[in-house]
Amino acid sequence: MPSVRFQPANVVAEVPAGTLIHEAALRAGILDLELPCGGEGSCGLCSVEVEGRPTSVLACQTKVVSDIVVRLPDRSQQGLRVLGDSHSLIDPKLLPDRDRLTPLYRNQRLAVPPASIEEHYSDWTRLTRELSRNGGPAPITSELTVLRELAEAVRAANGDITVGVEESASGLRVRHVQAGDSPEHPLGLAVDIGTTTVAVQLIDLDDGSLLATQTSYNLQIRRGSDVISRIDYARNPERLEELRGLVLETINGLVRQLAGEISIEPQNIRAAFVAGNTTMTHLLLGLPPRYIREAPYVPTVNSVPELRAQDVGLNIDPQAIVVCAPGVGSYVGGDITSGLLCTDLSTNAHDVFLFMDIGTNGEIVIGNADWMVACACSAGPAFEGAGIKCGMRAAEGAIERVAIGDNGARLEFSVIGGGKPAGICGSGLISLVGELFRQEVVDRSGRFFESPGTGRIVQQDSRRAFRLATAEQTRTGKDLVITEADLENLIRTKAAIYAACSLVLENVGLTWDAVARVYIAGGFGRYMRIADAVFIGMLPDLPLDRFRYIGNSSLTGAYIALLSREHRRRLAEIAARITYVDMSSNPQYMDSYVKALFLPHTDLEQFPTVAETFESRRRKAS
Amino acid sequence: MPSVRFQPANVVAEVPAGTLIHEAALRAGILDLELPCGGEGSCGLCSVEVEGRPTSVLACQTKVVSDIVVRLPDRSQQGLRVLGDSHSLIDPKLLPDRDRLTPLYRNQRLAVPPASIEEHYSDWTRLTRELSRNGGPAPITSELTVLRELAEAVRAANGDITVGVEESASGLRVRHVQAGDSPEHPLGLAVDIGTTTVAVQLIDLDDGSLLATQTSYNLQIRRGSDVISRIDYARNPERLEELRGLVLETINGLVRQLAGEISIEPQNIRAAFVAGNTTMTHLLLGLPPRYIREAPYVPTVNSVPELRAQDVGLNIDPQAIVVCAPGVGSYVGGDITSGLLCTDLSTNAHDVFLFMDIGTNGEIVIGNADWMVACACSAGPAFEGAGIKCGMRAAEGAIERVAIGDNGARLEFSVIGGGKPAGICGSGLISLVGELFRQEVVDRSGRFFESPGTGRIVQQDSRRAFRLATAEQTRTGKDLVITEADLENLIRTKAAIYAACSLVLENVGLTWDAVARVYIAGGFGRYMRIADAVFIGMLPDLPLDRFRYIGNSSLTGAYIALLSREHRRRLAEIAARITYVDMSSNPQYMDSYVKALFLPHTDLEQFPTVAETFESRRRKAS
Repeated sequence: MPSVRFQPANVVAEVPAGTLIHEAALRAGILDLELPCGGEGSCGLCSVEVEGRPTSVLACQTKVVSDIVVRLPDRSQQGLRVLGDSHSLIDPKLLPDRDRLTPLYRNQRLAVPPASIEEHYSDWTRLTRELSRNGGPAPITSELTVLRELAEAVRAANGDITVGVEESASGLRVRHVQAGDSPEHPLGLAVDIGTTTVAVQLIDLDDGSLLATQTSYNLQIRRGSDVISRIDYARNPERLEELRGLVLETINGLVRQLAGEISIEPQNIRAAFVAGNTTMTHLLLGLPPRYIREAPYVPTVNSVPELRAQDVGLNIDPQAIVVCAPGVGSYVGGDITSGLLCTDLSTNAHDVFLFMDIGTNGEIVIGNADWMVACACSAGPAFEGAGIKCGMRAAEGAIERVAIGDNGARLEFSVIGGGKPAGICGSGLISLVGELFRQEVVDRSGRFFESPGTGRIVQQDSRRAFRLATAEQTRTGKDLVITEADLENLIRTKAAIYAACSLVLENVGLTWDAVARVYIAGGFGRYMRIADAVFIGMLPDLPLDRFRYIGNSSLTGAYIALLSREHRRRLAEIAARITYVDMSSNPQYMDSYVKALFLPHTDLEQFPTVAETFESRRRKAS
Repeated sequence: MPSVRFQPANVVAEVPAGTLIHEAALRAGILDLELPCGGEGSCGLCSVEVEGRPTSVLACQTKVVSDIVVRLPDRSQQGLRVLGDSHSLIDPKLLPDRDRLTPLYRNQRLAVPPASIEEHYSDWTRLTRELSRNGGPAPITSELTVLRELAEAVRAANGDITVGVEESASGLRVRHVQAGDSPEHPLGLAVDIGTTTVAVQLIDLDDGSLLATQTSYNLQIRRGSDVISRIDYARNPERLEELRGLVLETINGLVRQLAGEISIEPQNIRAAFVAGNTTMTHLLLGLPPRYIREAPYVPTVNSVPELRAQDVGLNIDPQAIVVCAPGVGSYVGGDITSGLLCTDLSTNAHDVFLFMDIGTNGEIVIGNADWMVACACSAGPAFEGAGIKCGMRAAEGAIERVAIGDNGARLEFSVIGGGKPAGICGSGLISLVGELFRQEVVDRSGRFFESPGTGRIVQQDSRRAFRLATAEQTRTGKDLVITEADLENLIRTKAAIYAACSLVLENVGLTWDAVARVYIAGGFGRYMRIADAVFIGMLPDLPLDRFRYIGNSSLTGAYIALLSREHRRRLAEIAARITYVDMSSNPQYMDSYVKALFLPHTDLEQFPTVAETFESRRRKAS
């Protein structure tokens, strides 16, 4: 079989002759070659170089016939830019102290005093005494291999030894021992399993530094784009096993890429901390998810006991400890508790905070250090590009920001990575709709006013649409439009979010004024202008300095928990303290939702800034 | 290769043609075919039946040439009678309450309430709530396979489930789950690893009943008869591995026999509790034992962390938990702490007790519930038959009791299993020497008086000896004698024990009168008459009702600890509370020892009963 070597990751796949380069890349664990056009060869975004060929080729169109070396474009390393290192977005005081890390696994150097006739404690007792000198959890256990090497190790360098220690809620476990210093830097993995996207970070457990990040689509997308469709698919054991295999293939592929990128051995990855929503966690562990969506909606497990990598199926040190962020219930999972670690909600703050994680689903938490109420809203995947005619994720080629003047006559947009657009992503949509509304191209119910003669309002399937770019101006060779159906979709999404937030707030007897900070987590928010989101009525009309974008807080929370005992404890507390409120069964919800199905809302008093904009314009016009 | 099937154990060995039946039996894991004559074919004790042959054959002389079925005599099931069920020797109040067992592994039936919209706890949370309803250790962990089956199991029979739960110092671990009742009776193993003998008991963990006991020589005997010679042998890793393999072969062979005997699957053995001296424990685990006998005499570990059967090498459920009884130091191991569980020392008693475990080594513990002092004395293996010309272990054919009258003219003895004697065991020796001394055949220094003309005093290697039986009267076809060298050996042994006991007592400022109870543990004591042992000065001259023989208390302690959380906790307390005193470095020891090198002692005031016997005889004679 021909072999395909991918650079710069330097990974190889052997594939049958005739396989597409794109499929070979998947086989090699390279998962971020984007195909916005669905592999039709029209968008050109999967262009790669084959060594020895003068021109680049499309990975979705080119078949492998002999051994080749494929060089991936730089953009394949940054395709999902929004999911890079978002730690820098977090208040540094929330991160663990780098000088006092207590990671899930550490190499610790100890001076074990010699035994004497008077103090004839065993080697193990003298070792454990030193280990527990600064407190730390009990009991201390060990692998048998450690005991077998212990007598020689403590004597080889006068008691100067290095132990590899795993620390978890079950206590300490000594997994390695050697005389003197150890050349090994133990590594850890922070994993965020999203319904759409999986992100993995490789961390040096010695100093907590982030060595590399990799992200890709969750390969389970092949079997359903949202949580509900995955749960339905997994109804029989073979299919559950298939979904488990797909997410493992995703994660293990990312680990392989990370390992290739910075030349480390996956066997040195001694611990993994995994955050995911309840369904994703169930599918990773091979737990049947069906009862998550059948009344009374209980998962098999929220706080997953500690596991070993070999049992889970992660291709790292087989005995590596795997800890999952604790969930709260079927619709508020470990991704949310992990994300809350990145906010003042995790500290002793008494002000009221709102946390929103808007991805394929939306989750909302309101509260402070003393109480927290969570709810989920079925936001739908509009912000990730799905259900929108020309929608795409926030990757190369996506329109991320739009500016419209003169009632639609003048239009500018910016494209991720530059060049011609291939589609529009979540932040671009919000920006576009905000501008269309501001410029009075659409009315408050999301319908286009009569065409103002700019030529941008076109007919699509007997309904109106707004054309952002003509076929010649796009990478796909097709018109890039937003339809009234798209607008309805987006308005439903933003209404679901706003209705859920305001109802939770109302239920706890508070008004928006009481909210000191709004945290916006998740991929799509990074390029979103808060003012746009307020203008369309998705976010409350609060002073803009109360909003904080914290990026992929689920991943950052996993990174933090990997490194700090204190934060792992806090995570358990957060999960225990959250009360889940079921919105779908709340009779007030539909009322609140329907009121929000307008731009920005039926009740303009809730959006004084928006009201003021139109008011002042009317004043100028009159 | 011919196959040999052994009945009634129903185990098979395939062996090269020409192999002796005795060796084939070893290969099959049958370890209790005794060869008192060393395989010379002279004692006839290894006689077995081969199906299809009219007469029985000697296993040590008969070669296998084709497939055969060998029927072992009944006595091979009871060869080491002294190591049978000695639980009945223990005060019943020390045994765990059968109605409230907390074994290392249990099947527990639970009623898990259904979830509701109001109480939407996960399946795992509802399960763990029920599990911890009656207290019990935390945290509760699980195997991933359990989580995978949990959702269906709790729903299949309306929450009626049976869980297999492991309970240890690390908390609870759920290892199995199924709907409804479970037909499985989980089994446990109590293991006593002696330097000479290994004993294994199979226990029903549901009701604590003893299903079967098997004992055999420790196959390590091939590589040295005592602890010191084993430590020396194990100096390099290959030999350590060889010794580890030999004791595993012994234990696994016994397990195979137990399994065959009562038709159970070794895979259903879910937990093992192992008691052994420090060296035996190290050799079982493959830990280098050399530092046990090099100053400052510290083992690798006294309190061994919990292990899994597959790591240790036991052929039971690979994930079965293996717990070792905690030791105190190099010369006071888990066999002693385990044995102490069988005495009032383990309870809140405030009287002073003396515990003696006399095997290949002797260990002594004095104290009460508040304090305990332990020491070891190198008793030597005289009581197990080694170092004694016609010595043997307390098995079939051994003289176990002797009565002498008329200054040696009249002599009677009883033989274990009846018939002609093959040798003399420990209790026989003590009985014999007591009688020889009582009848004034030997003097207080252990030398024979001039021959009284009974024909029993004979010359052996230019020294005197006492003939118990002539060549025609024995199974071996040789004279059965006890020599002056044997007497010296025995006196050294009893002197070491007595000197150690009295010195420890003196060091804690007590006299013999303060000792409320003397516990005698170990195999040899069962057939020993306490009065004989007092008469020769091995045991203190106390009222006979203060002595208690408690059998193989190490094994019984393992049985108890397997079944009871409370006793496992007590065991850890015992180990922590014992102070080890090194006798060999105590300058007073040699003085105390030399004083005891007489029958019964240089200081007759310490043995008023013995003094009175001779005194009254002298009064009658005069």
